[in-house]
Amino acid sequence: MHQLVLLRHGESEWNERNLFTGWFDCDLTVAGRSEATAAGDMLTEAGLEPDIVHTSLQLRAIRTANLALERMGRLWVPVRRTWRLNERHYGDLTGRNKRETVERYGEEQVLVWRRSYDTAPPGIAADNEFNPNHDPRYASLPPELVPNAECLADVVARMLPWWYDAIVPDLAAGATVLVAAHGNSLRALVKHLLDISDADITELNIPTGVPLLFELDESFRPVEDRPIEERYLMDEAAVRAKADAVARQAAGG
Amino acid sequence: MHQLVLLRHGESEWNERNLFTGWFDCDLTVAGRSEATAAGDMLTEAGLEPDIVHTSLQLRAIRTANLALERMGRLWVPVRRTWRLNERHYGDLTGRNKRETVERYGEEQVLVWRRSYDTAPPGIAADNEFNPNHDPRYASLPPELVPNAECLADVVARMLPWWYDAIVPDLAAGATVLVAAHGNSLRALVKHLLDISDADITELNIPTGVPLLFELDESFRPVEDRPIEERYLMDEAAVRAKADAVARQAAGG
Repeated sequence: MHQLVLLRHGESEWNERNLFTGWFDCDLTVAGRSEATAAGDMLTEAGLEPDIVHTSLQLRAIRTANLALERMGRLWVPVRRTWRLNERHYGDLTGRNKRETVERYGEEQVLVWRRSYDTAPPGIAADNEFNPNHDPRYASLPPELVPNAECLADVVARMLPWWYDAIVPDLAAGATVLVAAHGNSLRALVKHLLDISDADITELNIPTGVPLLFELDESFRPVEDRPIEERYLMDEAAVRAKADAVARQAAGG
Repeated sequence: MHQLVLLRHGESEWNERNLFTGWFDCDLTVAGRSEATAAGDMLTEAGLEPDIVHTSLQLRAIRTANLALERMGRLWVPVRRTWRLNERHYGDLTGRNKRETVERYGEEQVLVWRRSYDTAPPGIAADNEFNPNHDPRYASLPPELVPNAECLADVVARMLPWWYDAIVPDLAAGATVLVAAHGNSLRALVKHLLDISDADITELNIPTGVPLLFELDESFRPVEDRPIEERYLMDEAAVRAKADAVARQAAGG
């Protein structure tokens, strides 16, 4: 049996300011750091010891992993980082206030961008100050790989190669794998693992800072047919309260 | 031309307490954290941008790398960690006060353990509280690889495979490589790079928290024949003052 732990980063500075974040590289807030440390305690209490960690290239996920692992005395585990675990790229919405975006485009349109599976927001302009096109972390990627806006379907498509080519081999080698990432890259992975439909996945809100455990069989599918609510390392009522809080925001991860 | 930057971790809790540290996994002090952050500034000022970082499995080196890279906005770079970059294993001296060790064994004997190239201190007992034999970070190593005491010659022998098999390929691929490690693992690497004799290398004191730049040619040897003092990203007088401070301690890394 393989052990996979997913962890969504804690509150970020732009969550707090209610801005669409996407590929903008903001840091965790003080509250977000506490969530990350608490996640380390939850892992310890559950007897889970990650042997390797996979993160996005974004500071808020990297720091979440570092704080959780540091709390566990496991900052020494091997690390792999990839843009394929990045948050969904919010295109032209990046850096915009969520409330103001609703006022500008109307609630219906924003809901489509937030919740439809396959409609991406408008692309980000090359000269937009929030466009990461001069960010050195993406400089070695062929330009056709770098999105300028993504829907969740796009995230699934670019995330899955990392699942198959990097995470699955680590699981196959017997490692307990921790994936520290974002609302939408984790949604994409959960969609795959639980075979959730395109329509249903956009309703899934993964709470921040709560480790989510998948025990997988030799086909890298869940051993038990249980709903996601029973897979968190936190009791269901507390998880629901956290997820509802996330749902009340326009999800900008 | 290849760029290699070496960085010795900042002051640790056991440096401060004047204990032989070796493979014991203590953290940085507040001063040590400041040194690490300052090292990030020195790299930025020198226009050096690490594309990848190699660290030991020890918290003080990992945290030094994280703080320096975070300061540079480069916490996203790929990371590789290995026991082969660990500090020299101080055997039975681990956890002992340096002054008390001199009183117990005599200054001459302690000087041999500290400064001879090929005489290791007595091995650490299996039941010594500072023996890392139950540490999960070494659990996957075949037992014959795990030292119970090392001289500098031992460190050279176990470090070089990592230089050839992991660091050199990254340099060959064009990466600027940062190696965040320890007094003796870096001494071992500098010995190799500058072809320093067995007798002379034990006199070399690498200051903490000061990046050391090697520009290497296609044979992975220094482009210019310069003394090590001219390779630090800090002026020579300041480096000498730091190195002298380290030399006044019995070096326990």
